[in-house]
Amino acid sequence: MNDKKPLILISNDDGVRAKGLAALVDALSPLGDILVMAPDRARSGSACGITPHDPVRYKVVEERPGVKICACTGRPVDCVKLALDVVADRRPALVVSGVNHGDNSSVSVHYSGTMGVVVEGCMKGLPSVGFSLCDFDADADFSPAALYVRDISERVLREGLPHGVCLNVNFPKSEHFAGLRVCRMAHGMWVNEWEEAVHPHGHKYYWLTGSYVNLEPEETDTDAYALQHGYVAVTPVQVDMTAYGAMAGLKDLETL
Amino acid sequence: MNDKKPLILISNDDGVRAKGLAALVDALSPLGDILVMAPDRARSGSACGITPHDPVRYKVVEERPGVKICACTGRPVDCVKLALDVVADRRPALVVSGVNHGDNSSVSVHYSGTMGVVVEGCMKGLPSVGFSLCDFDADADFSPAALYVRDISERVLREGLPHGVCLNVNFPKSEHFAGLRVCRMAHGMWVNEWEEAVHPHGHKYYWLTGSYVNLEPEETDTDAYALQHGYVAVTPVQVDMTAYGAMAGLKDLETL
Repeated sequence: MNDKKPLILISNDDGVRAKGLAALVDALSPLGDILVMAPDRARSGSACGITPHDPVRYKVVEERPGVKICACTGRPVDCVKLALDVVADRRPALVVSGVNHGDNSSVSVHYSGTMGVVVEGCMKGLPSVGFSLCDFDADADFSPAALYVRDISERVLREGLPHGVCLNVNFPKSEHFAGLRVCRMAHGMWVNEWEEAVHPHGHKYYWLTGSYVNLEPEETDTDAYALQHGYVAVTPVQVDMTAYGAMAGLKDLETL
Repeated sequence: MNDKKPLILISNDDGVRAKGLAALVDALSPLGDILVMAPDRARSGSACGITPHDPVRYKVVEERPGVKICACTGRPVDCVKLALDVVADRRPALVVSGVNHGDNSSVSVHYSGTMGVVVEGCMKGLPSVGFSLCDFDADADFSPAALYVRDISERVLREGLPHGVCLNVNFPKSEHFAGLRVCRMAHGMWVNEWEEAVHPHGHKYYWLTGSYVNLEPEETDTDAYALQHGYVAVTPVQVDMTAYGAMAGLKDLETL
């Protein structure tokens, strides 16, 4: 790899063979050298999960000038940690995740392995951006998103991000976007999350499913609202989860 | 179960047989009816991970007056979702997680399945508290923590928590605590995270390990500081991860 180009570390949670990952490599390889370290299989819903009790391995599955692609047995966050500590020949200038097959806006940020990658990159002090498309189809069309992926990544490469802040970018399922909005996380929740089924041997089991409810549908400054109205939603996300506003009200605990 | 008592939902990430879970059941059963839905095996480092692609099952492993204990094949967050949607006979008044065998302060909140339980409870609008002891030993002594577990839980049952806010409570490894402090999340990171090993067949593999570095050791208002000085650390955590302070500085993205 050419040391003069920035190194861009790419991962995801849909696995190394996902179409959304290939879209990211295509969009970003003009901007720098690419190191992909992605799960060897689909790892959706991994959040910031790590693998403390099993060994983790990786192998190089493709190498061409400026692009090295590795598959890893671990979870998305393991991929970032392994790439940084073991594989990368220099410190990445940017960590990018996705493009996820499916929405990661609102509270879904907490469940998302795509955003796990991004939060991990951010915790390591690297500018980090996650991209997700509101289309779960394995063959989803990522081409409308490609220009935004490149421009947002270029801007972050050039200007960085505030300390402890990363980006969660969600694209609506659309051929043409209404524009881009910088948003806050919508307050929402998942409901009716289990579908019961019966095993041939007679016992019940459950599939995780459910539907998302936006609990503030009238509010126009949320990511959920932006997506619903055809905008690309960019939500800045912070690593510091402290509820500062709640600290004073809890002080009585100190006299327990 | 007696409908006049509050229902307390308990889970963890060390699994249904963990000593820390039993400590929680013992400490909280005087306060209400207990429903445990915990992973059937250790699930450390699960964060807010969910199980979208595999079926999830549970079974009742113990039932006595006021206490029902279930083991679930899913991750900690699946346990909460399944308990709420499928198993609980009424809405819990409190969700409690732990007591974790190991520290979940500072950035470890992002990796923690113990805190995954708590964040999920909070997203469902329930007062939720996670307890962790800075001792990874499977036979750790939870007795010094028991009184705090009960008193904090009682206080939260009585007064609730602000909307979208949950608690991350960490106990130092000590027979006597210096007191309790309401803290913010320390800014820190994990370093040197992989230990390389060689498989008998010759290929390399890696164990996730590492050490935590507090990047602001002089600051006295953090959870890391409190723990280091023998205090019980109570960190209020919020579900909303929006970096509000970064929004204005990103507005230029809207003209991309």
